[in-house]
Amino acid sequence: MNYEKLFAERTKNMGANIIREILKVVSQPGMISLAGGIPAPQSMPLNLIRDLVDSALTKYGARALQYDLTEGFIPLREVLVSHLQNKGIMTRVEDVCISSGSQGVLDALGKVLINPGDHIAVEAPTYLGAISAFNPYGPRYACIAMDEEGIIPEALEKVIATHPVKFVYLVPTFQNPTGRSLSLARRHVIAEIIAKNDLLLVEDDPYSDLRYRGEPLPTLQSMIPDHVLYTTTLSKVFAPGLRIGVYIAPEPVKRWLVLAKQGIDLHSSTFNQALAAEYILGGHLQQQIPKIVALYKPRQEAMLQAMDQYFPSSYTYSKPEGGMFIWAEGPKGDDTEKLYWKCVERHAAYVPGKFFYPRCEEGLATMRLNYTMSNEEEIEKAIHIIADVLKEGL
Amino acid sequence: MNYEKLFAERTKNMGANIIREILKVVSQPGMISLAGGIPAPQSMPLNLIRDLVDSALTKYGARALQYDLTEGFIPLREVLVSHLQNKGIMTRVEDVCISSGSQGVLDALGKVLINPGDHIAVEAPTYLGAISAFNPYGPRYACIAMDEEGIIPEALEKVIATHPVKFVYLVPTFQNPTGRSLSLARRHVIAEIIAKNDLLLVEDDPYSDLRYRGEPLPTLQSMIPDHVLYTTTLSKVFAPGLRIGVYIAPEPVKRWLVLAKQGIDLHSSTFNQALAAEYILGGHLQQQIPKIVALYKPRQEAMLQAMDQYFPSSYTYSKPEGGMFIWAEGPKGDDTEKLYWKCVERHAAYVPGKFFYPRCEEGLATMRLNYTMSNEEEIEKAIHIIADVLKEGL
Repeated sequence: MNYEKLFAERTKNMGANIIREILKVVSQPGMISLAGGIPAPQSMPLNLIRDLVDSALTKYGARALQYDLTEGFIPLREVLVSHLQNKGIMTRVEDVCISSGSQGVLDALGKVLINPGDHIAVEAPTYLGAISAFNPYGPRYACIAMDEEGIIPEALEKVIATHPVKFVYLVPTFQNPTGRSLSLARRHVIAEIIAKNDLLLVEDDPYSDLRYRGEPLPTLQSMIPDHVLYTTTLSKVFAPGLRIGVYIAPEPVKRWLVLAKQGIDLHSSTFNQALAAEYILGGHLQQQIPKIVALYKPRQEAMLQAMDQYFPSSYTYSKPEGGMFIWAEGPKGDDTEKLYWKCVERHAAYVPGKFFYPRCEEGLATMRLNYTMSNEEEIEKAIHIIADVLKEGL
Repeated sequence: MNYEKLFAERTKNMGANIIREILKVVSQPGMISLAGGIPAPQSMPLNLIRDLVDSALTKYGARALQYDLTEGFIPLREVLVSHLQNKGIMTRVEDVCISSGSQGVLDALGKVLINPGDHIAVEAPTYLGAISAFNPYGPRYACIAMDEEGIIPEALEKVIATHPVKFVYLVPTFQNPTGRSLSLARRHVIAEIIAKNDLLLVEDDPYSDLRYRGEPLPTLQSMIPDHVLYTTTLSKVFAPGLRIGVYIAPEPVKRWLVLAKQGIDLHSSTFNQALAAEYILGGHLQQQIPKIVALYKPRQEAMLQAMDQYFPSSYTYSKPEGGMFIWAEGPKGDDTEKLYWKCVERHAAYVPGKFFYPRCEEGLATMRLNYTMSNEEEIEKAIHIIADVLKEGL
């Protein structure tokens, strides 16, 4: 049959995912990939799962397998209230909701908020998953310039002054792709700008537990709760395969998000939410964090050390206090997409940075390097290869 | 802050769910609710879960907890190929995809296919979850008249002739809410009409395993595979709380659905998919079906017997060969929504049928009765109460 006539206009916004095409080669045998963005298998509490299952089945019985509230499994939301309190987020059970990964709430948010043509202010570069969640709803992006301290307050003010911004989307801590964190001083300024302009801020916070140095930063949610939809995930510390995201939203926004989620997937897996409840209740999340830090920190250090040693001096790069990524920027004229293919030939891969800009028109000389999925030796080797290619050029 | 300015136009289509409001009272203590639509807790293989977890962790290790393909976990898709073959559905691993419950694929389908104002042909009455998945994308509904044998072929032809139909959505077997099945003879006629008009049919098939009498019916997918998106679920036989839906779509449709799902939730729970793979591989699904039939069949019989005994003769009702529902229709003038409140006062509940019509303008004298969540004694008691109220009137 003729399928082409079937598709909605909005599929044009969804487009093919060029980055996926490019990254297909990274699964070739012998490749050291610094292109990924996923947790190390060793970071997951594999040996704990049977105990969590036992505990969940004993405690909740068939309820753990049954349909449940769209808002989320109440025992999980209860334990999240105290867990979040430790992070300075004051909330109530009825305000903590569960989504199918953070991705789930970003999609629901797009559905509930974005009219075609609406402007969304995002960091440039920004998190690709958010773009793929928002795109089908037809937004335009207003890009906020960043430096090593995160978005620049004047840049945000300029964006707000020149665009009717529907909401601001930020990953303020250990951002994907740059690893950058919005500094404490800037957090206060940004919070003030958001509140003064009566804006909604979407604060996406998947990485803040993965801190290797320095002091924890307060969430923007704790500063201006009425203006923030805060979302975090159990994908970086517990297990991504369970697809558990967590969000806190102002009541009127939450009401629509829940209504949207009824149509999207009814609710997230009850069973996995029950496991997550037992995981946090048993203190395992808090115990797991230092183990993961002990795994990732030397990997990050190995990467930074190798970059110091091998990278051409024309390249600058971030030295984040945590997270999963290092962002490097070369001299104008370098094309990291073209150089990518040369690296791949020598069995090392990264992500060309331009793909993290909504229109792929900037960041031609940038790259994202991930250090969670390879060991120190592999990292050293891959950085050496990449550095050689950068020095040789095309 | 002022939140009202934030919401997208499409939230108007999402509306408040009146039926949810009405049904809030059914959780009151002492209520016998025939209003539900969920599986009995006893239907779920609670004692099997630990073994499935053991098996999945032994076989897949950390892979069961990791991010995975948007299309679905390959071992599950592999075993589904042979499982579906037993149902007459010939497919390949690459064509079987996993969604977050059937709801997940209905939402993705709406996103990929529906432009605001598009016409979708649906049974009247139809499945509410589909309406709540499609509504945010702004469709109009063209209703296809039904009788005891399912949709009437002439009614479908009329709808197609008078509306530019984007796709046809049907629950052909043991439909929710009516329990009706499209007869074999009609399946052939409907398949021919669909193919002749070069239409896409969405065949939603959650209930066909729950057959208490009669012969299995072939899926429309097996008749005209190029024209059918087929979806089924592990929510009625395995466990709804795992949120595992399954779909098979023509390649060009599948490609867009997968792209959409990347933005919606990346992928469905790897862990639950691994459990589902072990469940089917171990032959447990096939063993579970007769147990569930043995649980539900006497409940359905008890309901039908009580209706024969107590219901006013002005009411007619379906006698489905399987599924979870009986549909009753009273004389013109009866208002089952008003009568509902009188039943609730006496601690028995059903769902007023008009809510299953997209515009709630028909079916004022109809009701949906569920028999999976109550035992025979409770069913007899509740039907007696409802019958008394129907006889007394308002």
